[in-house]
Amino acid sequence: MDGTESLSPYRRARARTAALLFTVSKDDPLSRYVDIGLIVLITLNIVAVVLESVDDIHRAAGDYFHYFEIFSVTVFSIEYVARVWSVIDNPWKPVHNHPIKGRIKYMLSWMALIDLIAIAPFYLSFFIDADLRVLRALRLLRIFKLSRYSSAMTLLFQVFREESRTIGAAMFVSVLMLFVASSLAFIAEHEAQPDKFSSIPAAMYWAVITMTTVGFGDVVPVTPWGKFLGAMIGVIGLGMVALPAGILASGFDNALHRRRAMLEEKVHAALADGEISDEEQADLEELVRHLNLNTVDANAVIYAVKHQKAQQAPGVCPHCGKSLHTQEKLPARPSEEI
Amino acid sequence: MDGTESLSPYRRARARTAALLFTVSKDDPLSRYVDIGLIVLITLNIVAVVLESVDDIHRAAGDYFHYFEIFSVTVFSIEYVARVWSVIDNPWKPVHNHPIKGRIKYMLSWMALIDLIAIAPFYLSFFIDADLRVLRALRLLRIFKLSRYSSAMTLLFQVFREESRTIGAAMFVSVLMLFVASSLAFIAEHEAQPDKFSSIPAAMYWAVITMTTVGFGDVVPVTPWGKFLGAMIGVIGLGMVALPAGILASGFDNALHRRRAMLEEKVHAALADGEISDEEQADLEELVRHLNLNTVDANAVIYAVKHQKAQQAPGVCPHCGKSLHTQEKLPARPSEEI
Amino acid sequence: MDGTESLSPYRRARARTAALLFTVSKDDPLSRYVDIGLIVLITLNIVAVVLESVDDIHRAAGDYFHYFEIFSVTVFSIEYVARVWSVIDNPWKPVHNHPIKGRIKYMLSWMALIDLIAIAPFYLSFFIDADLRVLRALRLLRIFKLSRYSSAMTLLFQVFREESRTIGAAMFVSVLMLFVASSLAFIAEHEAQPDKFSSIPAAMYWAVITMTTVGFGDVVPVTPWGKFLGAMIGVIGLGMVALPAGILASGFDNALHRRRAMLEEKVHAALADGEISDEEQADLEELVRHLNLNTVDANAVIYAVKHQKAQQAPGVCPHCGKSLHTQEKLPARPSEEI
Amino acid sequence: MDGTESLSPYRRARARTAALLFTVSKDDPLSRYVDIGLIVLITLNIVAVVLESVDDIHRAAGDYFHYFEIFSVTVFSIEYVARVWSVIDNPWKPVHNHPIKGRIKYMLSWMALIDLIAIAPFYLSFFIDADLRVLRALRLLRIFKLSRYSSAMTLLFQVFREESRTIGAAMFVSVLMLFVASSLAFIAEHEAQPDKFSSIPAAMYWAVITMTTVGFGDVVPVTPWGKFLGAMIGVIGLGMVALPAGILASGFDNALHRRRAMLEEKVHAALADGEISDEEQADLEELVRHLNLNTVDANAVIYAVKHQKAQQAPGVCPHCGKSLHTQEKLPARPSEEI
Repeated sequence: MDGTESLSPYRRARARTAALLFTVSKDDPLSRYVDIGLIVLITLNIVAVVLESVDDIHRAAGDYFHYFEIFSVTVFSIEYVARVWSVIDNPWKPVHNHPIKGRIKYMLSWMALIDLIAIAPFYLSFFIDADLRVLRALRLLRIFKLSRYSSAMTLLFQVFREESRTIGAAMFVSVLMLFVASSLAFIAEHEAQPDKFSSIPAAMYWAVITMTTVGFGDVVPVTPWGKFLGAMIGVIGLGMVALPAGILASGFDNALHRRRAMLEEKVHAALADGEISDEEQADLEELVRHLNLNTVDANAVIYAVKHQKAQQAPGVCPHCGKSLHTQEKLPARPSEEI
Repeated sequence: MDGTESLSPYRRARARTAALLFTVSKDDPLSRYVDIGLIVLITLNIVAVVLESVDDIHRAAGDYFHYFEIFSVTVFSIEYVARVWSVIDNPWKPVHNHPIKGRIKYMLSWMALIDLIAIAPFYLSFFIDADLRVLRALRLLRIFKLSRYSSAMTLLFQVFREESRTIGAAMFVSVLMLFVASSLAFIAEHEAQPDKFSSIPAAMYWAVITMTTVGFGDVVPVTPWGKFLGAMIGVIGLGMVALPAGILASGFDNALHRRRAMLEEKVHAALADGEISDEEQADLEELVRHLNLNTVDANAVIYAVKHQKAQQAPGVCPHCGKSLHTQEKLPARPSEEI
Repeated sequence: MDGTESLSPYRRARARTAALLFTVSKDDPLSRYVDIGLIVLITLNIVAVVLESVDDIHRAAGDYFHYFEIFSVTVFSIEYVARVWSVIDNPWKPVHNHPIKGRIKYMLSWMALIDLIAIAPFYLSFFIDADLRVLRALRLLRIFKLSRYSSAMTLLFQVFREESRTIGAAMFVSVLMLFVASSLAFIAEHEAQPDKFSSIPAAMYWAVITMTTVGFGDVVPVTPWGKFLGAMIGVIGLGMVALPAGILASGFDNALHRRRAMLEEKVHAALADGEISDEEQADLEELVRHLNLNTVDANAVIYAVKHQKAQQAPGVCPHCGKSLHTQEKLPARPSEEI
Repeated sequence: MDGTESLSPYRRARARTAALLFTVSKDDPLSRYVDIGLIVLITLNIVAVVLESVDDIHRAAGDYFHYFEIFSVTVFSIEYVARVWSVIDNPWKPVHNHPIKGRIKYMLSWMALIDLIAIAPFYLSFFIDADLRVLRALRLLRIFKLSRYSSAMTLLFQVFREESRTIGAAMFVSVLMLFVASSLAFIAEHEAQPDKFSSIPAAMYWAVITMTTVGFGDVVPVTPWGKFLGAMIGVIGLGMVALPAGILASGFDNALHRRRAMLEEKVHAALADGEISDEEQADLEELVRHLNLNTVDANAVIYAVKHQKAQQAPGVCPHCGKSLHTQEKLPARPSEEI
């Protein structure tokens, strides 16, 4: 496939491995099976760690958990080595294609580090005398391997990144209020409850639990000023819930409009010759998937563009036949500018 | 009515039953009475189940509850049989019109299953020796029969479905954090409170109650690291409240714009001949109801379209004086595309 | 003033009273003093009720509270009688202008009933032997008299009314889930805690407190299924916070756009002759206040319209001098339609 | 630099101090070092206050905290005096440039008062015999000095100010409900729990903690009516979380559109001559930073304007070939109007 037939069997195997591990393709069933197999194994690992922490289950089936752990680490180790070995044939990341530098760069990438963390504790436990319970709980971090398979998370992270300055400012205001509230609570309650409000860090625990509206009730104010302060912190906390909600609502709305505008532009281009060809249709479907737009929205955009084109359709005065619009002057999109 | 006079009395009765049970019409008072009667009966059933669970009331009036239950099951059984019998004459669902396949399809539909669940426990209790309290509580599921009568819920479900990928990604991130938080809490608190943080599932209960900002206070962290973790989970929980709020705000806004665009299009079509006829006006009112738009918004849309039409009014080339607008070139809305 | 000089002194006094009590005018200082005086008195009343409920304060200063109460009731009674007497001269509500029917209509209006509730308990206490503490607490209802003076609340109520169908659907879904959760919690916990989960209403109290993420902790689940249910209800509760936030965000956004469009239209009309006269400027400022728009938004709208006008300025081809736009065909806004 | 060479050394030093303390410039490394140094010192102060409140740490290292405090107060005092001295040379605030009135105005400004509060308690403690713990906690207020360095907070405050009327109305409704709920709770629970619901202020503490969904659990209703009330307050509280979230979402969205419109306008102006010069590019980047827009949004705006220009490119009447667009008629933005 794609010109790899002329290569040596070794390089062919490496390219095939890269295709299996790094690309998502509808036409490659084996690649899908590998993905599904890994997802199932990761999920089973998480279930195993959770169940093993229950004493009764651990006592009854400890050996099986041990065998399963060895099997899992073997598979994940093979996966890790195979990824590092074949990454230089990953067609989507030319930056990793250099035999040495590419592999090092990949090994320092976020996803590769997660893969390493998934297996490292097992090997380290031979050399270091670590707490067994901690080691077991660390296995739970394997759950992060799943993030490789979720494409919709990209949108979440994008909105968070774009709104990061505003969210950061909101957090800064919260921290300001938290420090002031903690020191006031310390002053108000320290004498009445020297054990619970023993220091500002202790008061801060209470203030965070109140400001996030969790309100466990293990620490509660008893003095009138402390109670007044608690009520005020609760009200501020209410605003601290509303603030990020408002910021994110604006962010998601903005991201949606931007993604819709990108689709609109492509539909405009596709319709430049008056009709959407099969190839263009496939391209548009790919873009809709990539932009994480839902079908209803995508259709609405496509319909709106067609509608608009139809109204402008003649492009020329239908009676005197002269062009009213001149499309060809559109500049190429300069995405790097500023 | 509508051409059913020439049918046999049996088929006339069936068609009339279908009209009573499946359609909503202002001009058919009996159909409205049937609907209102069923809504009242369902509501009374729920009140009865709730009251019967109070021991004092049950002891004082057990017999009346029993008679009411028999009466209710009789009515709901008749309703169920009548629906299955007459569904093949339901003009709104041609897919159910086949005498055998149509009825089976209907019986497997969501609404029919709810109707069945409402009566099945009563009949099953003759054969199976089930816990009486469980049986009684199951009657509460009759409340779902009410969902047949709420049209505004459609919008909620639509927004949820459209935003499902983003909400799903948000949930995935939450679950990731929940697992990590639970295992860290287990490590931090297991030794100090071996009874409350006995296993990761136990720690997970605490982590969910904290992350949703419920904070019962039956389980609270006592170690410094546990308290720090509790405060962090509270802060994350605050984001977990804000995230779906932001996603849904964007979704509702989007749905509103789309529904408004649909009304706009119809108003444009209705105004193509320059005036909204009585029939077109009735159609528009029907559409406004169907789209769940409020009157203020609907009027704003209609006014805007009229305004726009008025401004474009000449619609002719200012130079040769012939119409520039050619509405008939508008393609039919392709709702299946992509 | 406004043609009242020719009236009898009695009717002049009544018209003046109506002007003092029912209109807000910058040019009538006495009207402002009456408003401010009433607002201060209402606020003092609320402070008094709250303070009087504290035993120590009541014991120390009971008499003064009594004298203040008699003074307040006297003023509020005079206000009530004066309003009923003069309402028929209220120029803003022609529907109240009939001497008998108008007064009865006014007395049944929301604001008049609140005024009546503010004084009725005092008079009733002479005839009915009511609990003194209840009577005193009822005085707190006087706070509702303040709602007469808040104009920004109109927007809140408008958004709530417009989104009422969607909010209603969200509440219906919540109630459905609440009933199901309560009956499941009753089944799961009744045997383990027969005192706390004694009946479905009792379980419902716990379910509401959990679903609203309050989580007092006075009732907590102890069985594994109950704990799982509690965690699930918490997660659902999180969605129940997000849902109205999303609906209201969309509603406020929509209301803002609509109000801005209304201002835009008026600015367009004012600029029809090319310039905003002093009178038009005053009208626009009045509209901005009435629409509850902030100055920044209002200026942005006015600037945008001016900008647009400037670009279209010629309105005619600047070279061949023929009109490209025809404004006079704009229909009058039909606000009642549909 | 900028013409200060001809001044006396004293005035040169003052102008240099003003440049160091009041301006942010990439080209002045010393100014950046001063800023960073002050930020680090403020942060260390906060850490010190928090740590010192822990008894063990205070006992072990009390002296070091004392020396650090003296050092900090010295630096902050020098900073304060230097700011008051040099403020009259601050080029960004001409209103402070008068030697006496300008300095007094500055000393009464928000930032200067915060600077004063940061050092005042230290000097006052020599004259007044204050509680040492209170004095120490007051040092935490130094954290407000950090607000000078956060530019993104401006957007938060702007949105809050613009939506203040609507938020105020929401708060007013909350307070109304709170008073009613408190007095009802007082009536319902006073007899059953005379110690916890001793007065309306006491009931109000419980009502706020419930309405903000904090729910400590130190005070819980025990009577059926009290429990019903608690559940209702919880539901209202849910709305009280949703309301500000919705208001702020609309506010942030609105602010974003306005800022984007401002950028659009500048890009239009920059493109009037067909090309963006280097100087214009630098101006635009400066504006993007100032408006707190993210790069993706900024690029989208610039691209959209270019696209639009390109489509209108001919800008000439297609028949007589002369320009239709007359940019110079655009009026200057009147930001003070209304």
